[in-house]
Amino acid sequence: MTKYPPTLHTLIALFKKIPGVGFKTAERYAFNLLNWNDNLLEEFARIASQLKTKIQPCHECGCLTEEHACSFCDIDQRDKTSICIVSSPKDVYPIEETHVYQGMYHVIAGLLSPLGGRSAHELQIDKIKKRVLDNQVTDIILALDSTLEGDATALFLREQLKDMHVNISRPAMGLPMGSSLDFVDGGTLAKALLGRQTF
Amino acid sequence: MTKYPPTLHTLIALFKKIPGVGFKTAERYAFNLLNWNDNLLEEFARIASQLKTKIQPCHECGCLTEEHACSFCDIDQRDKTSICIVSSPKDVYPIEETHVYQGMYHVIAGLLSPLGGRSAHELQIDKIKKRVLDNQVTDIILALDSTLEGDATALFLREQLKDMHVNISRPAMGLPMGSSLDFVDGGTLAKALLGRQTF
Repeated sequence: MTKYPPTLHTLIALFKKIPGVGFKTAERYAFNLLNWNDNLLEEFARIASQLKTKIQPCHECGCLTEEHACSFCDIDQRDKTSICIVSSPKDVYPIEETHVYQGMYHVIAGLLSPLGGRSAHELQIDKIKKRVLDNQVTDIILALDSTLEGDATALFLREQLKDMHVNISRPAMGLPMGSSLDFVDGGTLAKALLGRQTF
Repeated sequence: MTKYPPTLHTLIALFKKIPGVGFKTAERYAFNLLNWNDNLLEEFARIASQLKTKIQPCHECGCLTEEHACSFCDIDQRDKTSICIVSSPKDVYPIEETHVYQGMYHVIAGLLSPLGGRSAHELQIDKIKKRVLDNQVTDIILALDSTLEGDATALFLREQLKDMHVNISRPAMGLPMGSSLDFVDGGTLAKALLGRQTF
């Protein structure tokens, strides 16, 4: 391993910092970059160094934004009486792609996790409450992971927001589209049966 | 997709240029980079922009080198009468890791490939012949892929070098270590039987 030129060695070490990228993969990526032309590498370098300064969380909703105004906070285009709470700015994009939601978003700092050291006050409930009051919000969707932490956070948020007189909902749990019954795990099937919809 | 901030969008497009990295993976990498601290991103940017200027192929053997002197061309440490021909600078490192080869290397421009448009004169046979004569080389190992192109290139090189009076060999083909006979493909098994070694 020590035979690699130092620059290449550092690049491999940096790639390895990305979760899911092991030594072999990092090595393959680094050798591939060696074949890129100079312009592309320059652009890559420029983008990497500007990343944190150019992309900032929106002060209002927490979504990623590059210009001063966040496109998700544009009240002319979107329904401001509905807020979808997500645990990461990344979750906003798959929801947008479904084209079935036209309301606002609100990114919380993460899911409650006693082991991970994330406690209730980091969710900044007051900020959510203020947005609900300021915009006469009627609907809150808790679009959180369907995991232990996601469930706990959703329960906690429901408890905190229950006297705000808003409809609180979560995305339905059930069979993934295109799945066959015998390949679905028991927990999902139970949720799907309990939440069965009139047909 | 258009909702991503432009900088993030460009970063995703750049990651996608690496073979084997699709949109979802590129997206995951880009979002991960957003969590890196500024120093790390700065270093990443610096390494990416210096990559091509700092790392150069050795004039003698074609291996990657960062200092003026290539560590694989160090005749005090290594046996200069043996040359191992590989088709990419990347192939040198796994061979080095085996610790069973202490000779020189020679990187050819790639494997012969009529469809890929790589023809015989790009192999620069004269350069290999010159090294053989200059260093009184006695052994040439053709450590090329065991594919159609690798076999064709090995045959061609053997033909071109046959009047240089050197031993020409290829790494043995046979069963991978730890494999069981019934999982090995027929071609490999045939090669292993034909090349059976006295035990």
